[in-house]
Amino acid sequence: MPEVVVLRIGHRPERDQRVTTHVGLTARALGARGMYLAAEDHGIVQTIADVVDRWGGNFFVKDRVSWRGCIREWKESGGTVVHLTMYGERLGTIEEEIRKKDRILIVVGAEKVPGDLYGLADYNVAVTSQPHSEISSLAIILDHIFEGTELDLEHAGAKIRIHPSPAGKSTEAL
Amino acid sequence: MPEVVVLRIGHRPERDQRVTTHVGLTARALGARGMYLAAEDHGIVQTIADVVDRWGGNFFVKDRVSWRGCIREWKESGGTVVHLTMYGERLGTIEEEIRKKDRILIVVGAEKVPGDLYGLADYNVAVTSQPHSEISSLAIILDHIFEGTELDLEHAGAKIRIHPSPAGKSTEAL
Repeated sequence: MPEVVVLRIGHRPERDQRVTTHVGLTARALGARGMYLAAEDHGIVQTIADVVDRWGGNFFVKDRVSWRGCIREWKESGGTVVHLTMYGERLGTIEEEIRKKDRILIVVGAEKVPGDLYGLADYNVAVTSQPHSEISSLAIILDHIFEGTELDLEHAGAKIRIHPSPAGKSTEAL
Repeated sequence: MPEVVVLRIGHRPERDQRVTTHVGLTARALGARGMYLAAEDHGIVQTIADVVDRWGGNFFVKDRVSWRGCIREWKESGGTVVHLTMYGERLGTIEEEIRKKDRILIVVGAEKVPGDLYGLADYNVAVTSQPHSEISSLAIILDHIFEGTELDLEHAGAKIRIHPSPAGKSTEAL
């Protein structure tokens, strides 16, 4: 199973807090190891740290990252960079190749991304060529990379656990 | 292939505009037929109508819907109601059964949902039992229902089309 980390770029602290929080929580819930944030936003770091504290695992968030530096280091250490964009190649044609990589950095942009990102990425990948959401694109590529196994992940050290239930809520304090 | 419509509940116009827009665009891009919105928000109706006008297809958004009435009518006409919730049954254990249904209403809540919703739904389904995002949950259940075929959907009547490309942007005006 590859090691996956998300790099969130284009985040505007005043406007994108909620969407970037969803990006981070989606990354965590669906098996990524952490999120680099190419902006300063302590609120997001703290919100996600609180979720990790309560729900377990060791997902990290690191803000104030230089996105170009992050991509360069990732590539220099032998990792693969996947940029999610509606202009990219279809996920279906490329996912088998991506799934074989050891370490994958998934770059998730906001509305506009710097033009040179397309050239810096090893793969530009479209989860449909339609406008929708970086959150849904990230969810689907993670599910395709991990082939559904991430849906039943256990997160070590959780203080609370949900017991799946056909109706109602069943939780256990640990 | 089942007919799928999304019902978005708990939407607060001042706070949830962006997330609900992502819900609607995700629904459209991933093969749902429309979205009922249990709130009044003309801005979202218009934003998504503009996307449909430009990018094609006949996805609808209807606001000011009574969520209880909507669920009742859907069930009375023989449809199946699936409520996305982290407390529900695991997607993996239930998806094969859901996929066989003809008409599926997927109920997507915001942070808190009315307690009786759990009983009104035919299925309460968890896309992981972890906190993340209604947008990612919706994306994954649609991808699992349609088994990936929705990723290559063509949307009739589009004014613009993207040609998938390994680097850069290739669009065609139609």
